Amino acid sequence: MENSRFNELRIKVNEYLDKYMEVIYPESVYESMRYSVLADGKRLRPVIAIETASIFGCSIEQVMPLACAIEMLHAQSLIHDDLPSMDNDDYRRGKLSNHKVFGESTAILAGDALLSYAPKLIIDKTPSSIPPEIILRVLKEFFIAAGTDGIISGQIVDIDSENKQISPETLDFIYEYKTARLFKLAIRAGAILGGANEDILEKLTKFAQYYGHAFQICDDILDITSTIEELGKTPGKDIKAKKSTYISMFGLEEAKKQVIFLCNQAYDILKESSINSEILSGILTDIVKRVNK
Amino acid sequence: MENSRFNELRIKVNEYLDKYMEVIYPESVYESMRYSVLADGKRLRPVIAIETASIFGCSIEQVMPLACAIEMLHAQSLIHDDLPSMDNDDYRRGKLSNHKVFGESTAILAGDALLSYAPKLIIDKTPSSIPPEIILRVLKEFFIAAGTDGIISGQIVDIDSENKQISPETLDFIYEYKTARLFKLAIRAGAILGGANEDILEKLTKFAQYYGHAFQICDDILDITSTIEELGKTPGKDIKAKKSTYISMFGLEEAKKQVIFLCNQAYDILKESSINSEILSGILTDIVKRVNK
Repeated sequence: MENSRFNELRIKVNEYLDKYMEVIYPESVYESMRYSVLADGKRLRPVIAIETASIFGCSIEQVMPLACAIEMLHAQSLIHDDLPSMDNDDYRRGKLSNHKVFGESTAILAGDALLSYAPKLIIDKTPSSIPPEIILRVLKEFFIAAGTDGIISGQIVDIDSENKQISPETLDFIYEYKTARLFKLAIRAGAILGGANEDILEKLTKFAQYYGHAFQICDDILDITSTIEELGKTPGKDIKAKKSTYISMFGLEEAKKQVIFLCNQAYDILKESSINSEILSGILTDIVKRVNK
Repeated sequence: MENSRFNELRIKVNEYLDKYMEVIYPESVYESMRYSVLADGKRLRPVIAIETASIFGCSIEQVMPLACAIEMLHAQSLIHDDLPSMDNDDYRRGKLSNHKVFGESTAILAGDALLSYAPKLIIDKTPSSIPPEIILRVLKEFFIAAGTDGIISGQIVDIDSENKQISPETLDFIYEYKTARLFKLAIRAGAILGGANEDILEKLTKFAQYYGHAFQICDDILDITSTIEELGKTPGKDIKAKKSTYISMFGLEEAKKQVIFLCNQAYDILKESSINSEILSGILTDIVKRVNK
C-alpha cells in the first residue's frame, strides 16, 4: 500500500518483532520462529490493529505487543499450512518455506511455540496503563481467531474440500474462518484495547468481515493472474489442488465484481461511523486496484 | 494412585473435560481433540492443580477450568510428539495415536486448536470470584509451560539429542523442560489461583521440580521394565531410538536411587511447609513404589 503512515508503521512493526524475538538456547527453535515471523511481509494485520487502536486513543507502545502477537499468529498459520501433510508448499514470502529450511519437526514445534509466545508477549509487554480485564478480552479475541472459532476450522474445512464439489455456504465458511477471522482479530482487539463501545465494535466487525472476504477473493484472483515473483509463493496452486474458489464457482469477472461490492460495503461502514482513516480506507482501494490491474 | 480423593477428582476431571468439549461443525477437528483429551489417563496434572489450589482455599469450580486446560495442553504435546516427523509412535494411552486415526493434518490442527482452546477455557469458565489479574498470572504460567520456556524447548533438545552422546546437563535440561515444567504449571498456577504468597510459591516450585525429574526417571525405568499393556504406549522406545536417558548414563540401580533421593527432597518440602496433603505426598510414594516393583 502506498501510504507513508502505513510504511512508517510497517517499519516499526518490523523493529519490534526483531526486538521481541531474541535467539537463546535451544537456538534452532528460535531461529525457525524468527525465520518465518521476520520474513518479508506487508504487516497488514498488525498495522490494521495499530491503526484501529489509535483511532480509539491508544499509543504505539500500548498496542505494539498485540500487533506483533497477531503477526506471530499469522506466521504460525503459514508455517503449519505449508507442511507436507497440509498444503505442501515449498515457497512462502519469496523464500523457502519453514520446514524446507529447518525440517518438519522443528517447523511444527516453532509453530506450536508461536501460539504461546504471542499471547505471553501480550501479557508481558502491554503497558500497565491497560487494565487486566481489557487484556483478558484482547486475549480472548486472539484465541477465537487462532483456534476452532477461527483459522483452525477454516483450514480443516479447506483441506476436507480439496477435489470436492462444495456449496457456496462451505466456501463462505472457509473464507470467513481461514481469512476474515484474523482481520476481525486485528480490528476487534485493537478497538477493545482502545476501549471502543459495543456499537462501534459491531460495526467494525462487519467492516473486517467485508474486507476479509474481499481480501481472500483478491488472493484467489492473484493466484491465477500472478507470477511466483509477484506473489512470493507458488501461483496456480488452487487449480492444481482442484480447490474450489470464488472464481471456480462464479467465474473471474463475477469475482472481481464481488471484491468491489464488498469493498464498497466496508467503505460505507467507515463513512457511517465517521471513521477518517487513510489506512482503513486505503486497504480497500488497494485490493480494488490489485484485482483491476 | 490408590487414594479415594484422587479417584474422586479424576472422575470429576473426566466429567468436566467431557462437558467442556462439545462436538460441532467441523466435527473432525473436535472429534480428534476429544479422542486424545478424553483417552484414558491418570489425570495426574489436573488433579495436582486442583489439590494445590484447594490447599489455598479454592473450590473445585474455581480451579476446574485451569485443571482441564492443563490436561488439554498435556494431550496436545502427546499428539504432536507422536507425529511421524517427531517420535513417530503408533500407540498412546492404550490406543492408536491421534494421527493414525485422524490423519496427520487433522492431528496437527487438533493439537494447534488445543493450544487456544485451553487458555480460552480458563478465560471463559473461571468464575468471576477470581480477579482478572490473577487469571492473567495463571495464563502466563500456562504459556511458560506450553512454549519455548517449557515443553517446546524440551522436545527440540530431545529430538536433537537422538543418536548422540549428550552431557548430564543436556539431559537435565530435557527432563526439566519436557516434563517438570508441566508439573510446575499444575502446582504454581494452582497455588497462584488460590492466592499463595511468593515464599510458599518458591517452595512448591522446588517440590514440582524434584517431583518432575523423579517422574521422568521413573518413566525411563518403566520404558525398560514394562509391557505395552502396562504402559499403554510402545515400550523399549528409548533404546530403539538410541535416546540418552538417566539409565543409559548412570545405570538402572543409580536411576532408582535418584528417584528415591528426589522424592525424599520433595517430601521434605511438604513437611517444612506444613502441607498435609495425601495427594501430594501420595504421588511421591506412588513413583517410589513403581520403580521398586
